[in-house]
Amino acid sequence: MGPVSPQVWKSTGKLADGRDIIYFDEAPDLGRAAVPDTRPLPPQPGPGADPDAGLRWDALRGEWVVIAAQRQDRTFLPPPGECPLDPSRPGRPTEIPAPGYDVVVFENRFPSLRGAGHWPPGADTAASSASFAERPVPPTDHGQTGGVPGRPPFGRCEVVCFTADHDASFASLTPRRARTVVEAWADRTAELGALDGIAQVYCFENRGEEIGVTLHHPHGQIYGFPFITPRTATMLGQAAGYAERTGRNLFDDLLAGEIAEGTRVVTSNQHWTAFVPAAARWPFEVLLFPARRVPDIPALSDGERAAFCDIYLDVLRRLDALFGRPLPYIAAWHQAPAEVAGGRSEFGLHLQVLTVRRAPGKLKYLAGTESGMGVWINDILPEEAALRLREAG
Amino acid sequence: MGPVSPQVWKSTGKLADGRDIIYFDEAPDLGRAAVPDTRPLPPQPGPGADPDAGLRWDALRGEWVVIAAQRQDRTFLPPPGECPLDPSRPGRPTEIPAPGYDVVVFENRFPSLRGAGHWPPGADTAASSASFAERPVPPTDHGQTGGVPGRPPFGRCEVVCFTADHDASFASLTPRRARTVVEAWADRTAELGALDGIAQVYCFENRGEEIGVTLHHPHGQIYGFPFITPRTATMLGQAAGYAERTGRNLFDDLLAGEIAEGTRVVTSNQHWTAFVPAAARWPFEVLLFPARRVPDIPALSDGERAAFCDIYLDVLRRLDALFGRPLPYIAAWHQAPAEVAGGRSEFGLHLQVLTVRRAPGKLKYLAGTESGMGVWINDILPEEAALRLREAG
Repeated sequence: MGPVSPQVWKSTGKLADGRDIIYFDEAPDLGRAAVPDTRPLPPQPGPGADPDAGLRWDALRGEWVVIAAQRQDRTFLPPPGECPLDPSRPGRPTEIPAPGYDVVVFENRFPSLRGAGHWPPGADTAASSASFAERPVPPTDHGQTGGVPGRPPFGRCEVVCFTADHDASFASLTPRRARTVVEAWADRTAELGALDGIAQVYCFENRGEEIGVTLHHPHGQIYGFPFITPRTATMLGQAAGYAERTGRNLFDDLLAGEIAEGTRVVTSNQHWTAFVPAAARWPFEVLLFPARRVPDIPALSDGERAAFCDIYLDVLRRLDALFGRPLPYIAAWHQAPAEVAGGRSEFGLHLQVLTVRRAPGKLKYLAGTESGMGVWINDILPEEAALRLREAG
Repeated sequence: MGPVSPQVWKSTGKLADGRDIIYFDEAPDLGRAAVPDTRPLPPQPGPGADPDAGLRWDALRGEWVVIAAQRQDRTFLPPPGECPLDPSRPGRPTEIPAPGYDVVVFENRFPSLRGAGHWPPGADTAASSASFAERPVPPTDHGQTGGVPGRPPFGRCEVVCFTADHDASFASLTPRRARTVVEAWADRTAELGALDGIAQVYCFENRGEEIGVTLHHPHGQIYGFPFITPRTATMLGQAAGYAERTGRNLFDDLLAGEIAEGTRVVTSNQHWTAFVPAAARWPFEVLLFPARRVPDIPALSDGERAAFCDIYLDVLRRLDALFGRPLPYIAAWHQAPAEVAGGRSEFGLHLQVLTVRRAPGKLKYLAGTESGMGVWINDILPEEAALRLREAG
């Protein structure tokens, strides 16, 4: 337990079923992690316990697909007063035992990937059918699932609550609180990335029922993947090819080109530029790039972190102003793979914010061209989207 | 004009703005193509006419994105009695001048790709700002759009109406009518694939408001892409790698493996097998493979075409029976690239049918993992989905 930066104090506890909970406090010695979880929860199973859960190999596309059938029972739009992300009150225990919190991270109770930090990767099915509280045997080999290449759903799914205020949103946070979230992201990226068997850490937020969000409390998620994701692998491949052809860095040149062109820049400050990509796939899509290329959030300096909070809050408020109502969005941190997985040197950290809303009563759907062929058709001109976001400031 | 098979008669006409319309009749000499389009439509512009439309190169992903800003004005859920896909009646001209039709194909009035069949590919912007009725100058080079690699939205978007009955669906067609649709798909695949500048032909159907369908009349679409799509390129790459490693064909082995495994097979007949893929990404996803590997629809034999109609109608009716109501779905024909584009020898034609509905009141959304990282999480076990579809027969 101790300060992870001059501004944030971290402490770690355990939930009743063995899951980790990590508080990021804005003051020292609050004792939140010491508050016990009194719920009678069954122990969390190991990654091989559920034969219906696992990673399946899609041979036609060369990608892993996560099968998470057990998640059908997860909490779905709970009524007000029953939010599992509120702090606990007497007589109403939630996922957070403490009576209050600033930012808190805990392992998802209904994860699609599980076990990292509790089990070694590749622990065999029989061993990992035990619970998190027991020690597994050493790893053997990947299993086979139903005649197809498969393996247990090893990995980690964490929830990050941005504030105890149920009715807030990321856009309504103070810069101080946004900074605490950044510290939590940096901490989790470093910690999960160092876990045996984790290849990539992904911090993201889904916001809005229009994209399937099942809990309204302002929160994000952090995944520790046991493989490099298709999107990241593609970007690494593109950057490598670009370096080979030109001797230059793709991310650097992309950012420099957008700044020089200017028509798609939404806003910028000393350390960051927010722009609509020239080949935007979504009606409104904004990329936030730091001026100095870094592989991931932990590599951001103090000044870069502070400047990120300013520009990101500004961009989110512009997005909410577009249609005069809270915008459904996905905010996705593109980070380099964990050190052990390699490929970090050419990668450029950036945040992608996208929305499926294209007009007040209209959503962008992924239909035949996108879902069938991977060809995106965007009805909004990127330069027009950037103009509207500049004017929404 | 003449028979394209023993069962279907094809005839071609022009709409008032220069677009092609092709009737596929189930009886000869109906004279439908001779009925003039009397609407005062402005001529269709060439592919370079709209500076806001074009293909943009996404350098981070190495893929083309289609920007089609002008489509925002397209017809959106017209009231009953104003459907543009009904046959014309006195005083109410529609997209189809004839007073009736069996199956009809015409160029989309609001296309995201345009000009193929009317213009040479790569016609320069100034020339192609003329209309379809004029002759462009020879092609020069790809243009640049706003400081990023871009080119005009050359290609072709066709609409295929499955029946004149506004309230029908593909699942309610007779096998005879389904066969006429197959003949139309085969004809268009061959014709568009032979056009200068078309690399791949894609036949598909979007069904249901849940995936953004704006016209209820039963219809599908046919795209002629000027590039090989990301999905097809990926499958070609996977098949090539598989052949190199094993000396065998990926599509053949996938189908043989599913038949041997059996637990994911939904139904089959002499020529076709319908199964849920082991690594299904969608709550209910069915692949239909012919027993004999062929590159595309035109290569299917008469017996294979007839057997396809039987199994596809069966599968669609099972899907509609799942939740006791019409299911929103995307049906996507995966075909080999056009001959000129190459890569055909290892490819195996198949139809993918997928739905976003995972439960009566719940849809599958593409949220942070799918839209951000390309990692699909499926809440339905593929073997369970196959079982339910077997029982729905």
